[in-house]
Amino acid sequence: MAEGLLMVVSGPSGVGKGTVCRHLLQKNPELAMSVSMTTRSPRRGEEEGKSYFFTTRDTFVKLREEGAFLEWAQVYGDLYGTPRRFLEEQRDLGKDILLEIDTQGARQVKESYPRGVFVFLLPPSLAELKARIVKRGTESLDAMAKRLDFAREEMKSLDIYDYVVINDRVAEAAGRMSAILAAEKCAAGRNKNLIAKLLKGGTW
Amino acid sequence: MAEGLLMVVSGPSGVGKGTVCRHLLQKNPELAMSVSMTTRSPRRGEEEGKSYFFTTRDTFVKLREEGAFLEWAQVYGDLYGTPRRFLEEQRDLGKDILLEIDTQGARQVKESYPRGVFVFLLPPSLAELKARIVKRGTESLDAMAKRLDFAREEMKSLDIYDYVVINDRVAEAAGRMSAILAAEKCAAGRNKNLIAKLLKGGTW
Repeated sequence: MAEGLLMVVSGPSGVGKGTVCRHLLQKNPELAMSVSMTTRSPRRGEEEGKSYFFTTRDTFVKLREEGAFLEWAQVYGDLYGTPRRFLEEQRDLGKDILLEIDTQGARQVKESYPRGVFVFLLPPSLAELKARIVKRGTESLDAMAKRLDFAREEMKSLDIYDYVVINDRVAEAAGRMSAILAAEKCAAGRNKNLIAKLLKGGTW
Repeated sequence: MAEGLLMVVSGPSGVGKGTVCRHLLQKNPELAMSVSMTTRSPRRGEEEGKSYFFTTRDTFVKLREEGAFLEWAQVYGDLYGTPRRFLEEQRDLGKDILLEIDTQGARQVKESYPRGVFVFLLPPSLAELKARIVKRGTESLDAMAKRLDFAREEMKSLDIYDYVVINDRVAEAAGRMSAILAAEKCAAGRNKNLIAKLLKGGTW
């Protein structure tokens, strides 16, 4: 059985990471979303082990010191992290995991888990990205301008990514990501065991 | 427009390269088979520019000296080669080219065109490969034994290949190859121009 893959999806805010990931998960029942650990309290409707793994700050800090997270961050005083163990368990079962994360998180994951498949989602154009952020309409003009500037900076440092996928239409972007998953399962570097097994499999 | 890709498909004799390639071509109308140049005479039904580019030995040798072939070989006294120009013309039109070739030819192509996508087709098992070669039934036992020994050697030196695809069922193997083509079109290294263009595309 082939080892499960970790697909890390990042990209500028407003590009539509969440929408593309949801579409991809719907089309690939074997693919599962990574579940983060957090120190914040559960909100109504959130389930332990599905929405998040909820934990105390003490436990989180201890786990972090043990290297238990592929990446972590503090947001509004709460700690969030991607548990290495959950991923490894799924991987050993042959399951693929999808991790949607900002570019700083993706950079941390690249260091701790370089064999992940790193995908950067691109807008069809800068103008379109701007339109999407404005359409969302949840922020002040000043905050939007900062976000757009940051997005442009993010798009300049793509060195950690294996693939870039243009999110022109959601279904097509998700289709390209499905193809990337299928192709990566055939990557020669990921199949050394298979080839060795094949060669041992019998004599003429 | 993205540059067209060259997909090089190789693998041990008997693995089913031809069948998988035909299936892949049927499913991908934009994909075209590479057309070889040869010094042998046209056979009944063969068309210039479709089956082969037919040429004289003098012209072939001259072209070869000019580096016009991605690879070449002599078979039963006739010369065969893969013209670089045909590939480059198609590539610049954004068309993908499929080249089915033996492992020695693939090695030559890797040297002259390293940005090709190199796929090695594997049998599900050595026993199955043996069964396929025996089923073909066109050779003496001695010739088959030699072919199988050679196949095993070929499967040990896969260093030039980017992907390995198991030919368990033709449609599935062709499906994996389609996914590889789609994924390679998203490879970060192949999209540097696109990203640069996107970043230049406008100010906030």
